[in-house]
Amino acid sequence: MSRLIELLATEPTIVTAGVGLFSAALDAQAVPHTEVSWRPPLTADPDALARVLADPRRAGANAEAARRMLAAGAALVDVCPAGEVIGLEPGEFCHAGPPIEWERASGPLRGALTGAVLLEGLANDAEHAERQLAGRGVALAPCHERGGVGPMAGVVSPSMWVFVLRDEAHGTTSWCSLNEGLGRVLRYGAYSPEVIERLRWMAEVLGPALRTAVRATGPIDIKAIISQMVQMGDEGHNRNRAGTLMLLRDLLPVLAESGLPGSRLAEVARFIGGNDHFFLNLVMPACALQARAAAGIPGSTVVTTMTRNGTEFGLRVSGTGDTWFTGPAGVPDGLFLGSYGPADANPDIGDSAITETAGLGGFAMAGAPAIVRFVGGTVPDALRTTAEMYEITVAENPAYALPALDFRGTPTGIDVTSVLRTGLLPQINTGIAGRVAGTGQVGAGLVTPPVECFTGALAGLAAAAPD
Amino acid sequence: MSRLIELLATEPTIVTAGVGLFSAALDAQAVPHTEVSWRPPLTADPDALARVLADPRRAGANAEAARRMLAAGAALVDVCPAGEVIGLEPGEFCHAGPPIEWERASGPLRGALTGAVLLEGLANDAEHAERQLAGRGVALAPCHERGGVGPMAGVVSPSMWVFVLRDEAHGTTSWCSLNEGLGRVLRYGAYSPEVIERLRWMAEVLGPALRTAVRATGPIDIKAIISQMVQMGDEGHNRNRAGTLMLLRDLLPVLAESGLPGSRLAEVARFIGGNDHFFLNLVMPACALQARAAAGIPGSTVVTTMTRNGTEFGLRVSGTGDTWFTGPAGVPDGLFLGSYGPADANPDIGDSAITETAGLGGFAMAGAPAIVRFVGGTVPDALRTTAEMYEITVAENPAYALPALDFRGTPTGIDVTSVLRTGLLPQINTGIAGRVAGTGQVGAGLVTPPVECFTGALAGLAAAAPD
Repeated sequence: MSRLIELLATEPTIVTAGVGLFSAALDAQAVPHTEVSWRPPLTADPDALARVLADPRRAGANAEAARRMLAAGAALVDVCPAGEVIGLEPGEFCHAGPPIEWERASGPLRGALTGAVLLEGLANDAEHAERQLAGRGVALAPCHERGGVGPMAGVVSPSMWVFVLRDEAHGTTSWCSLNEGLGRVLRYGAYSPEVIERLRWMAEVLGPALRTAVRATGPIDIKAIISQMVQMGDEGHNRNRAGTLMLLRDLLPVLAESGLPGSRLAEVARFIGGNDHFFLNLVMPACALQARAAAGIPGSTVVTTMTRNGTEFGLRVSGTGDTWFTGPAGVPDGLFLGSYGPADANPDIGDSAITETAGLGGFAMAGAPAIVRFVGGTVPDALRTTAEMYEITVAENPAYALPALDFRGTPTGIDVTSVLRTGLLPQINTGIAGRVAGTGQVGAGLVTPPVECFTGALAGLAAAAPD
Repeated sequence: MSRLIELLATEPTIVTAGVGLFSAALDAQAVPHTEVSWRPPLTADPDALARVLADPRRAGANAEAARRMLAAGAALVDVCPAGEVIGLEPGEFCHAGPPIEWERASGPLRGALTGAVLLEGLANDAEHAERQLAGRGVALAPCHERGGVGPMAGVVSPSMWVFVLRDEAHGTTSWCSLNEGLGRVLRYGAYSPEVIERLRWMAEVLGPALRTAVRATGPIDIKAIISQMVQMGDEGHNRNRAGTLMLLRDLLPVLAESGLPGSRLAEVARFIGGNDHFFLNLVMPACALQARAAAGIPGSTVVTTMTRNGTEFGLRVSGTGDTWFTGPAGVPDGLFLGSYGPADANPDIGDSAITETAGLGGFAMAGAPAIVRFVGGTVPDALRTTAEMYEITVAENPAYALPALDFRGTPTGIDVTSVLRTGLLPQINTGIAGRVAGTGQVGAGLVTPPVECFTGALAGLAAAAPD
C-alpha cells in the first residue's frame, strides 16, 4: 500500500492546537484527540520584532532592569497632605492612568473628580463642580507623572493626605493616597456627602495620627511586610488582609504613646482594622519604586508601568522612557456585588496594575488561592496564572517567595517581546467601578491589557534600536 | 517453555511494597521497579479489632461525634486568674498531658513546676522549690482533668491568668494560660529570674488589661478567627501569625477606650504583636471545646484527647470516656535553634496536640506550607500530610476550609480503627523543649503518638463493646 492509502485506511491520530473550538468539536463527537497548549504569537510587525530581538543591548539591559527591580527597597517615611508633597496647587488634580481630559474621562473618574472639587471647596454642588471641570479652571495630571500612584480613579487633590515611601537603594520617593475602604468611596467614583465627610475625617484625624506615628517610629520597612504577606495568602492587589494587620501592629504601640486621646486612637484603629484593603495603598507605591528603578535603560524591553484611566490602558517600557503606549481599556470579567452585573461595569481603571508590573497581584495569585472568592475563577486558575506569568517575565523575586510553589519567587519584570511571542498577556486582578459617575464599586474581577499597548511599545523599541 | 522457565528466562518486573529498604536497595543497583505505597496494619489484636468494627453502635456514634465536633462553637468570654476559674488552691498546680508525679516528670516539666513554685512565693530558690515538689507539699493535676489545656509543660498555678472560652452550642467552658513568647519561657522549662518577672508582668498588667477589653467588647468569636487564619497560612499549632494579628485588631480599639494609660497600652500591644504564637493559647481551648463535644458517646471510636507530659503520651477516646491510654512519648524530629541538636531534645510534651485532635496543626499543614521553615520537611510533605490525615478521620470541617485544597475542610475526628488499619499515625507538629530543666525551647519539629496508645484504646473499646 502507498503511504497515502495507508493513512486513509487506518484509524487517524488527531492533534489539535490553538483555537479551543477544534478540540471542543471533537469532544462533542467523542473522537479521541490530543490538545496541544499553543497559541499563535500576537499580531506584531515581524520586522520590528526581529529588530528588537536582535538589539545587542537587550540581554544586558534586561538583566540590569531585573537587578534594579529586585534591589529596590520601600520604606514608609512620612504621611503628609498632597499639597505639601507633590506641590499640587488649588485647582490641580492627579488621576490614575495615562493622560486624559475631562471630555474623554469615564464615569468613575468624572465622579471622583467631582468629589475632589467638592472636598476642596471649589464648588457648592456636583453640577457646579462638573461645570468647573468641563471648563478650563482645573488642571489634570497622571499620578505617575507626579511621582505617585492612586488606586481606581486615583484622584488626589491638595488637601488629601498621602503615604510617602522611599527607596534608599536608588534614592527615589513615591507616594499614594490613603485607602478609604470599599463600596461607596471616591476612588470608585462616588461623591455623596458621606464620601466627602469620610475624606474630611481622613484629612483631619487619620492623616495627622499616622504622621505622628510614622515620625515617632521611624521608617517602616514595607518591603519586609510584603515579604510576609505573600506567605499569608495576600497577593497585594485585591488581598491585603495580612499586610493591613501587620501595619496596624507596627503603628499602634507608637500611636498609643503619642498622646492621642483613647477615643481617637480607637477610631483610627477601627478604621484601619475594618478595611482589609488599607495596605493596598502601601503596596502600590512600594511597587512603583520597584518598577521605576528599572526605568530608562536603553535597549531594555521590560515594562515599567501598566495603568488605566477608565478609558485607556497605558504602558511604559524601560527602553523608551516616559513614552506612553495606549489602547482601549478592557472591561474586567468577575464577581459582582449585590444586584450589579456586567452591564454596570466601567472599563478597567486605576494605577493599581503597578502591583502586577512589579510581580504581585495577578502574578502572585498562586500564593493567594482564597482570592478566587473575590475576583472569580478557580484555585487551579490562580495557580496556572502565576505559572504562565513566569513565561513572560525576566526574573523571580526571592524577597517575595511563594510557599505554595516551594518558595519560588514571584514572576517579575514583564518582557514586551515575551508577551508578543507567547501571546500570553499579563493577568491583572482588579476592583470594578460602576460606569455611572457616583455609583461606587460594583465588583472585582480579572482583566488583561489591550494588545495595542504591546505592539505600540514594540514599534517604539524598534525605532530606538541601533541599526 | 513451562511458565516457571519463562519467568526465569525473561526480564523480571519488580514491585516493592512496605519497607523502603527494598526499594532503596534496588535503586542502588539501578534496577527498574515500581514502589507501591502500602504499609502493614499496626500490630493490633485482630479479635479486638473485629469486635470493635462489628459494634453496631459504631457508625451512628461516630457520625454523632463528628456532628458535635463540627457544631461546637468557641468564644472568648473572659480572662481571669486561674485561682478564680479553676478553683486552684495554693500549692496546687496543673500540668500538660496525662497524670504524672514529680518522680517520673521530665526536665522541662520539672523546670516549669519549679518556676511556678517560685512565682507563687512558696520557695526562695530553685533548690528549695524542687524539695517542695519532691515532697508531699504540692498537688499535681492534668489541665485536661480540670477542664483546660496548657501548651508544652502546661504548668498553671493559682496566680497565673487564663483565657476562658465558651461553647454555647454544648454549654461547656474551657481555659488556657496566656502565651509568654518563645525561647526562655516557663512552658519550655525555663525558670530564671527574667522568666518569673515576665510572668509577674503578665499577671499584673497583661491579664487585667485583656479582661477589661474582653468584658467591654463582649464575647470574641475565636472559631471565626480560626476560620480566617487557615486561609492566611496559619495551621493553628506552630503558625498563629494571622490569628494573633486579628486578635490584636479586635482587642486594641476597646483597650484604647478602656482608660488604660497610653504607655501601658503600648506595652500590651508590643507584647502581643511581638509574639506570633500568642493566639495558640486561644486555638487550643477552642479545639478542646470541639473535642470535648464529642466525648462520652458509647460505641464511638473517635479520639477526643491527644496530649503529652514529656514522659508519656496520653489518648482518650469518645466511647471509653475519661480513661487514659498511654505510651512512651516520642522525640520530635525537626529543626533546632542555634547550637542545639537532637541530643538536647526532650520527648514530646504539651496539651497542644489538642489542635491535631480537632483537625488543625499537623492535620492542616496543607494550608500553611510556610511552616516547613519552622518545623522542617518540605512543602510537598505538608500537602501529603493533610491528604493522609483524611484517611484516618471521620469528617471534614467546612468552617476550616483550606484554599490550597480548593476549600476542602480540614480532616477532623481521628478514628482509632482507621489508624490501626492503615498504619497511618496522626501527624503532630510541635515545639521541642530542652530535656534539661531550665533550658527553654531548643527547636520545633514533627512527631507521632506511640502505637501503644491506639492498641490500648482498641482493647478498651473492645471491652466496652456489646456481646
